[in-house]
Amino acid sequence: MSSLGPPTGMRDWLPQDALLRHRLMESISSVYRLYGYLPIDTPAMEDLAVLLGKGGGENEKLLFKVLKRGEKLDEARKSGGDLTDYGLRFDLTVPLARFVATHQGKIPKVFRRYHIGPVWRADRPQKGRFREFYQCDMDVVGGASSAYEVEIITATERVLGKLQGEFQLGRYWLRISDKRLLPLLLRGFGVAESQALPIALLLDKLDKIPLAQFDSELTDILQKESDAWHTIRGLVLKASRAADHDVLLRTTTEQYEDQFAKVNSQKIREEVDEVLANLRSIMQAVREINPKSCLIFHPIMVRGMDYYTGPVYEAVVEGFPSAILGGGRYDNLIGQFAGTKIPAVGCSIGFERILSLLQEREADGAISSVPRALLICDNDDPALLQQHAEQLRNEGLCVETYLDPDDVGKQFKYAEAVGITWAIKRFDAASSSITVRYLPERRDFTLPLPQFKARLCGKN
Amino acid sequence: MSSLGPPTGMRDWLPQDALLRHRLMESISSVYRLYGYLPIDTPAMEDLAVLLGKGGGENEKLLFKVLKRGEKLDEARKSGGDLTDYGLRFDLTVPLARFVATHQGKIPKVFRRYHIGPVWRADRPQKGRFREFYQCDMDVVGGASSAYEVEIITATERVLGKLQGEFQLGRYWLRISDKRLLPLLLRGFGVAESQALPIALLLDKLDKIPLAQFDSELTDILQKESDAWHTIRGLVLKASRAADHDVLLRTTTEQYEDQFAKVNSQKIREEVDEVLANLRSIMQAVREINPKSCLIFHPIMVRGMDYYTGPVYEAVVEGFPSAILGGGRYDNLIGQFAGTKIPAVGCSIGFERILSLLQEREADGAISSVPRALLICDNDDPALLQQHAEQLRNEGLCVETYLDPDDVGKQFKYAEAVGITWAIKRFDAASSSITVRYLPERRDFTLPLPQFKARLCGKN
Repeated sequence: MSSLGPPTGMRDWLPQDALLRHRLMESISSVYRLYGYLPIDTPAMEDLAVLLGKGGGENEKLLFKVLKRGEKLDEARKSGGDLTDYGLRFDLTVPLARFVATHQGKIPKVFRRYHIGPVWRADRPQKGRFREFYQCDMDVVGGASSAYEVEIITATERVLGKLQGEFQLGRYWLRISDKRLLPLLLRGFGVAESQALPIALLLDKLDKIPLAQFDSELTDILQKESDAWHTIRGLVLKASRAADHDVLLRTTTEQYEDQFAKVNSQKIREEVDEVLANLRSIMQAVREINPKSCLIFHPIMVRGMDYYTGPVYEAVVEGFPSAILGGGRYDNLIGQFAGTKIPAVGCSIGFERILSLLQEREADGAISSVPRALLICDNDDPALLQQHAEQLRNEGLCVETYLDPDDVGKQFKYAEAVGITWAIKRFDAASSSITVRYLPERRDFTLPLPQFKARLCGKN
Repeated sequence: MSSLGPPTGMRDWLPQDALLRHRLMESISSVYRLYGYLPIDTPAMEDLAVLLGKGGGENEKLLFKVLKRGEKLDEARKSGGDLTDYGLRFDLTVPLARFVATHQGKIPKVFRRYHIGPVWRADRPQKGRFREFYQCDMDVVGGASSAYEVEIITATERVLGKLQGEFQLGRYWLRISDKRLLPLLLRGFGVAESQALPIALLLDKLDKIPLAQFDSELTDILQKESDAWHTIRGLVLKASRAADHDVLLRTTTEQYEDQFAKVNSQKIREEVDEVLANLRSIMQAVREINPKSCLIFHPIMVRGMDYYTGPVYEAVVEGFPSAILGGGRYDNLIGQFAGTKIPAVGCSIGFERILSLLQEREADGAISSVPRALLICDNDDPALLQQHAEQLRNEGLCVETYLDPDDVGKQFKYAEAVGITWAIKRFDAASSSITVRYLPERRDFTLPLPQFKARLCGKN
């Protein structure tokens, strides 16, 4: 049984990963709080009725269901009834809807919350996809005006900027469109109902395939050189240039007018214009608030979630094939348990994607260790050693003690193995001076304690 | 469906509770890190084989079991086999044992880790007992010497001191005994095997019942006025005075010599003395390291867990009937999956008990809010308002904006309802001056931004 691991598709977190995860959570949370968003949490389990909601067919396949217990299980077995009563949450949005219904009256009319926690999906495990993973959601419930989109997008860009600064996330930009736009355009271009979904699926993987493949797959759906084929290709060519995003930081809806002009119905064109006007006003406000905004208009964007009802957005990091976060307006979901219509806007940060990106980038592990020192055991009295350690901790130093009387070389090796770079050889409490070895260079220093502390915590 | 709540015995965390929980975790973790302990995490689910381990009978009743999925479920249904494969972890100790086996070679020989996370138990829900609750464990795996007990006890007292300072936890003390001591003593006093367990159960609830009730229940088990009855009562009377713990801070094992002298077998007395010598050396070392230590010897202590094999300890807060943390040495559990014997010492902080204690004490909610201000909406241009908010956030101020053009009185009411005490009425970026209303006194101030920031973040 010695090769026993965690369940398939689930992970243990060794200290370095746990610390990185924690730091990432803290970075993101601190930005959320800056905007007045506060944390909530909900149980890992919810009633199956909540999770399956209205037409939960798709979700049911993903569910980890929990067996009933005791008498209820016996009853269910006898009667041939349902053996399960709870399920593990598969996202944080359905629990939010339930939470809003449960705590009506206790939460403000406009409710800004963030929620960071694990969710569970019985997906087929594959590289980079897990059955237990963290989500990290920021939502405002109860806000109907597009000022809330502006707020969430602005906060999201600040998160990205912070991750960029603290973790060298990489060059990023944010794309915005409207859930309704692409279907309207396709209809307006004369694309048949049956072709709309295959085209959306193709556009959705555009970031991951070369343009030649896109052309060939588009030709499998639409007649090559047809008007619609040309128009869609024109849209794609324009949008693809977004990779060169510096040029496009000020993308406007007008730049796509050549393609929009191909909409063949006055009524559809009016609907398109209404959607565009809303997007324009959001983009303009975002840019006025944050002149460095990397928000670009991206009319071919497809956000997978069915529940979006208006503007949608996602962020892309250069060299990374999937969006690292996404969100939008969803006005029909939150009220489902409360029995009223409650508008909502949110953003979900692809916590695991960002984490794996950061893990690749900091393979040396320097970023997420706790600056700590190892107090070397050089006598037979562990109690005396522990007294010295305690005095150092009283000064705010993280100190691990080596409590076995092994030879010093072995103790240094241990320190290096656990990522400790400073070994404390002697501490003289009377003079508050400390003799330490800097292990990477095998050099010894004797210096005043405060100076060592600054050095340890500053750069380790 | 509008009265829908979380599953029975599980809880939602509203922002104030979520923030308090988070602060408490951070306080505790920071002490752990000071001692060189690092965080790990494991999945919520484990294989049932792991959770049930050797003779998991007692645990099985508490388990939330997870239904198999897909083909495996179909197969199990056809063959009448087990329908479940995973279970939710019911503590953090069994997962630690599995973790140690999984990551042998990657973790150091002496492995110091902490782990804070939810666990799940299908207990009958009752006041203060939940089916999903947090545990908060600090353990050192691989340390055989009693210096590790000294380290964990010292760290634990620092946690208590910190909680005392930051959250006014209340007067506390730590009790120490040895898992083997009480059974040895009872045998030595001539108590029959069949009476030992009832006596232990009675002693275990001593903190919660009056002494008269103890006497009467003891008389139900042992003949009144018998030698054993008198000796046990003598032990209890001495130990009960621990409530007046100032007197007893320096309790030694010698103070119980009257009772220990009643041990009627030379062999048992030798075993008792060996246990006592180890406890004395631990107590002495702890007191030398931390002269303010509140560790007292408490020979009648019963720690429920079967797996302890040596010294055990627990902390008690004045006026609170249950121990708020407990731990001890358990040398036979961790190696069960690795297939070797691995000594271990740990301490589990009663996170939920401390949390409920703090929640009672800060009913006014002052402690755990995020210091933030509400920017009042006083014109029809949300974009301009949001620009001002963003400038303030750039200065590090947590600012929520009121985005609907309601009258100002309504906005003030909103702020008060969500626990915000400062409303920003005007911000002049050019002069960096700000006009704010302090809502509790309905007074307005105009002051430089840095001064307001200090005031907001300092005392809110």
